[in-house]
Amino acid sequence: MKKCKTVILGSIGIDDIQTKTDNRKAILGGAASYACVASSFFTETGMMSIVGEDFPKEYFEKYKKFGIDIEGLIVEKGGKTFRWGGTYDDNMIDRVTNFTELNTLEHFEPAVPASYENAEYVLLGNLAPATQLSVLEKMKNTKFVVADTMDLWINIAREDLMKLLEKIDMLMLNDSEARLLTGEHNIIKAASKISAMGPKYVVVKKGEHGAVLFEGDEIFIVPAYPIAHLVDPTGAGDSYAGAFIGYLASADNLNIQNIKTALYMGSVVAAFGVERFSLERFENLTIKDITNNFNGLKRMTQI
Amino acid sequence: MKKCKTVILGSIGIDDIQTKTDNRKAILGGAASYACVASSFFTETGMMSIVGEDFPKEYFEKYKKFGIDIEGLIVEKGGKTFRWGGTYDDNMIDRVTNFTELNTLEHFEPAVPASYENAEYVLLGNLAPATQLSVLEKMKNTKFVVADTMDLWINIAREDLMKLLEKIDMLMLNDSEARLLTGEHNIIKAASKISAMGPKYVVVKKGEHGAVLFEGDEIFIVPAYPIAHLVDPTGAGDSYAGAFIGYLASADNLNIQNIKTALYMGSVVAAFGVERFSLERFENLTIKDITNNFNGLKRMTQI
Repeated sequence: MKKCKTVILGSIGIDDIQTKTDNRKAILGGAASYACVASSFFTETGMMSIVGEDFPKEYFEKYKKFGIDIEGLIVEKGGKTFRWGGTYDDNMIDRVTNFTELNTLEHFEPAVPASYENAEYVLLGNLAPATQLSVLEKMKNTKFVVADTMDLWINIAREDLMKLLEKIDMLMLNDSEARLLTGEHNIIKAASKISAMGPKYVVVKKGEHGAVLFEGDEIFIVPAYPIAHLVDPTGAGDSYAGAFIGYLASADNLNIQNIKTALYMGSVVAAFGVERFSLERFENLTIKDITNNFNGLKRMTQI
Repeated sequence: MKKCKTVILGSIGIDDIQTKTDNRKAILGGAASYACVASSFFTETGMMSIVGEDFPKEYFEKYKKFGIDIEGLIVEKGGKTFRWGGTYDDNMIDRVTNFTELNTLEHFEPAVPASYENAEYVLLGNLAPATQLSVLEKMKNTKFVVADTMDLWINIAREDLMKLLEKIDMLMLNDSEARLLTGEHNIIKAASKISAMGPKYVVVKKGEHGAVLFEGDEIFIVPAYPIAHLVDPTGAGDSYAGAFIGYLASADNLNIQNIKTALYMGSVVAAFGVERFSLERFENLTIKDITNNFNGLKRMTQI
């Protein structure tokens, strides 16, 4: 029987995106799209998500071309795919949401196909903590589970989030979310409080300024890969998480060296992704390109 | 004849500082104070600055206790020392200036004592570019000159600043200043434009997010030293620059390895400084403490 080593839960969306100098309508997006593609460079990746009947057929082919297993992708009859529209500020960091149409995502109950149940590496992308938990309960053989979250769930689903935190190995979240979750402005103190809630590893993401890994009292500083031509930052955090779990699965040994390397891979792959809209930059990206930039990032940081 | 290997130009101020949780009135500050103290851990450092007759005698003793040479410190008869007051936002990064009394600084013409003229390592702290140039013209034997600047001079003294840039080895400036100077939002592009104006090395500082060194097409990412207890960020950039030039002078070999190490020393020393108000944290700091944290910062960044 086929078996995915890594499975990823997340949204799929059709996005309208406006940046300072450019815009795109109805392009493929969503956390699961970015994360699965990023992971697919390193490992067999299964996708758990949902779309409607309106979802363009060519996008299924696109996922398959990356080698992504889409058995866990639900196509809801008569349903409409999640849609999101956003406009980025001139700084290409802050953004306003122009519209959100949850559509099929609103009542999404993830399917965990038999071929996914024994996946050892799991990424629970940003969805309601109850949805993340429902997937985790069906997994039979996990070695490493990483979850993402957002301000919305911290505000409205804190109790479920707390249950989730007890069951995962790593939480990835933005600095502002770490502050919101803990009431601590200082990220060292915030990460320490989050660790006490359950996860052995906490990764605080700081966008263009990289990320920081906390494991107990140990700190590891993960640089962002510097980019001269930023086109669309959408999905960067998801590509980061996807490349992380994918690399870790391929290494398949949970020593700290592999975890650090996996985070560097996250920075490298995320930086490629933002050079174009949607998944475009990944389409002709090779593992050799990734390795080159990984070595480049090492050169930029090692003394 | 005594000879300072490193000389530093900058302001001395008496500061009133308000943070979210604490405040101090009339404490010793100014770029030259922070930078000279930071440099003094590594090398014989001469200070070029100005104070008024009101400057407390104990502060001269404080400088001397750090081993700083103050022959280049002018005490203006009847003059009043520069004063500054500021209030930090809750984020401890943004601040508003409550008052600025330039006093003696307004017509400051730096003295370059004979014992300073052969200094090989020079830090031109943030003052009018014409003032920075006037010091540089008197230096006879420089190996490495680093200058700091600010938005004010970019706006009102650009022509002088351009002359300065042709004559220095490194410009250190904040990301917002790099953008203002070049009109480029992206710091890679901005640094490239600044390099074309003269300096071989450009260091773009990003506060708590560290700094980035540019040398031609080469990039080196310098992490900030993570701190859990930030008390007062005033002077951090000056301590950073001071420790940089002081370490580089002590290594006395301009290879890239020493420049990278010097930037790490900047991060380490600056992080100590912000743990207390004014120069307090430096008073019982040892080179062993600095080396410990330097090794710690390496552990946090090397993979």
